[in-house]
Amino acid sequence: MKINLRIKISQVFLLLFACTHLTAQQRKPIVSPQINADNTVTFRLLTKLATKVEVKGTWMPVNMPSSPMVKEDSVWTYTTGKLDADMYRYTFLLDGVEILDPANSWVERAGVRHENILITGGDRTNEYAVKDVPHGSLSKVWYPSPTLHMKRRMYVYTPPGYLENNNKYPVLYLLHGAGGDENSWTALGRAVSILDNLIAEGKAKEMIVVMTNGNPWQAASPNEEPVNPDAEKPNTASMGSMRFENSLVADVIPFIEKRYRTYTDKNNRAILGFSMGGLQTQHITNANPNLFAYIGVMSMGLMDNDRMGTTYNKEEHSQQIKALSKASPKLYWIGIGKDDFLYSSVVNLRKRYDDEGLKYEYFESTGAHTWSNWSLYLDMLAPRLFK
Amino acid sequence: MKINLRIKISQVFLLLFACTHLTAQQRKPIVSPQINADNTVTFRLLTKLATKVEVKGTWMPVNMPSSPMVKEDSVWTYTTGKLDADMYRYTFLLDGVEILDPANSWVERAGVRHENILITGGDRTNEYAVKDVPHGSLSKVWYPSPTLHMKRRMYVYTPPGYLENNNKYPVLYLLHGAGGDENSWTALGRAVSILDNLIAEGKAKEMIVVMTNGNPWQAASPNEEPVNPDAEKPNTASMGSMRFENSLVADVIPFIEKRYRTYTDKNNRAILGFSMGGLQTQHITNANPNLFAYIGVMSMGLMDNDRMGTTYNKEEHSQQIKALSKASPKLYWIGIGKDDFLYSSVVNLRKRYDDEGLKYEYFESTGAHTWSNWSLYLDMLAPRLFK
Repeated sequence: MKINLRIKISQVFLLLFACTHLTAQQRKPIVSPQINADNTVTFRLLTKLATKVEVKGTWMPVNMPSSPMVKEDSVWTYTTGKLDADMYRYTFLLDGVEILDPANSWVERAGVRHENILITGGDRTNEYAVKDVPHGSLSKVWYPSPTLHMKRRMYVYTPPGYLENNNKYPVLYLLHGAGGDENSWTALGRAVSILDNLIAEGKAKEMIVVMTNGNPWQAASPNEEPVNPDAEKPNTASMGSMRFENSLVADVIPFIEKRYRTYTDKNNRAILGFSMGGLQTQHITNANPNLFAYIGVMSMGLMDNDRMGTTYNKEEHSQQIKALSKASPKLYWIGIGKDDFLYSSVVNLRKRYDDEGLKYEYFESTGAHTWSNWSLYLDMLAPRLFK
Repeated sequence: MKINLRIKISQVFLLLFACTHLTAQQRKPIVSPQINADNTVTFRLLTKLATKVEVKGTWMPVNMPSSPMVKEDSVWTYTTGKLDADMYRYTFLLDGVEILDPANSWVERAGVRHENILITGGDRTNEYAVKDVPHGSLSKVWYPSPTLHMKRRMYVYTPPGYLENNNKYPVLYLLHGAGGDENSWTALGRAVSILDNLIAEGKAKEMIVVMTNGNPWQAASPNEEPVNPDAEKPNTASMGSMRFENSLVADVIPFIEKRYRTYTDKNNRAILGFSMGGLQTQHITNANPNLFAYIGVMSMGLMDNDRMGTTYNKEEHSQQIKALSKASPKLYWIGIGKDDFLYSSVVNLRKRYDDEGLKYEYFESTGAHTWSNWSLYLDMLAPRLFK
């Protein structure tokens, strides 16, 4: 194509740029976060008026108070101790109000909150980065859910090549935890980068990944679902009601297998979930022992019914475990961090499976009930699927 | 499916919920923003320590100072005058630091900044809402760009039914302005809701909408492109260089027409762009007069070359306009707000087209160089396409 119109245009756009908002870091030489050579990280906030500035991040234990930042020449600063390579989320507290770091444009949504993202380098986070490799597509897709009487939304990852060929693919269903939604695995779990990178390296098979919304009262994530004053309010009771679990089996899987080019046998279906999603994974595979050949239960075990005041039909559960054992899944994986508050529930789940004779693989990581572990588990498990 | 495992689970999830972060508005009875019956809007922020709190929003003229909020019992409050029905973006200034409203979970990214979203009701914003209608899918898709020597990303909207049938569709290419990227039209322009709603009402034809990244130095939006220390830095000069324009013609259109079910004639291609994207729309259609039957130039006219110090080959431009006129596009639309800082450039563009005999339709709205106008123009123009 010949370029006929030769407008030397740079100054025009200087004007246009001036009319868009400029960011704080473009106006000020504030760098935050700054990853230092000794693996500490320095955070900075410029404000003359504030009386108190703190930082709170996921490198800190859950109940630890936020760390005070120190003021010098109107710049408030805090430097962490040495941090392991990981993806962290953090916010500042400015005069008691939780705010984002104005110098960091990387923000993700965690439920109804927004947090800054910080990824420190090293082997542990090598698979989290967007690299110059073939990328899959990520689609926000609506599907009918007769089970829940709604149109509902999910995210669907199709691997590199899906648009270019006519191949069929296996499908991984990835379930999130309480407080999350269909955005969680991509925003906080780095699922797209992990899959892109593992596939590019030949470590994982090409697969479709389906990330559902596990809250049965919700059509889609906040502010993206239809406004409906009559909609059911979020409630904890509905989460354990099998309503989402039933909709995954009756609505989601048939939609995916009809609308995408998928294999449709159990050896080409996997399901992984953490926390609430780990319980849903148990529920779904207990009730449908021949649906998935690959099952991963992350950071969730058997409920402590005595402590929780819940009822539990041990005999029915035994029958389910026996049926699952007979179905011989190629992988039944259980993983949890040593410091997870649900650790003992996993001890109990393993004891039940041992008693009933269900074979499983057990992995114990460091750490607690965190995205750091769930990303790690996905990175470990994706290469094991469909082989 | 029979439900065999009957765990009364609600209390379990109360514990799980307690372990997730709770939002400020869940802890406190702060409502913000609150749309009042008289069409004013009240903003609130709870903080005991702050010395100064202000609000800044897109209902205010560009150069207007932020509005001070007033403190009463630790709650800082500001109520606007009557606001027209519109989608607004706003932030607070807390002791001089730009922050998000902790009580409003609706946040979108505008370039490298994040802002809260507020949509006031009424006819004007009726098409912006997510409604209980069939929804199209929105996909983040990577494509090869030999022209720009990169893998690049775009957003592709496929209309309701695309996954269910084998129909072919016409394609609308939507271009954004300086400071934006492939996320802008969906995050700030409500493109998905506008298309979903117009299609559901039978006002617009089903179409694929392609939203590109118009910055030729950028593979994808911030924090979603590969880390590349050698990458070209953002620069204004490259924006008018025809590099993006050439890549749209050579890379994007062939990819879309090969990988999606599209019609491939000019009567089934439309291009609309605003500001920088309006200039790119002119460049692309000037150089390729037979590519698009529907052309919309929003909030951008002819450069004031004397003032900007740019060069301009009037004779070549004349030849291009004549060729375009001969190609007889079904619609050549020019729109701008009365208060737009580029208003005179549109006066000049119209004069050139009048002098050269190119037929166009002109629409003048109220308002300035704003998303309010670009969403309005899309809502007006989408029903005119492919008919």
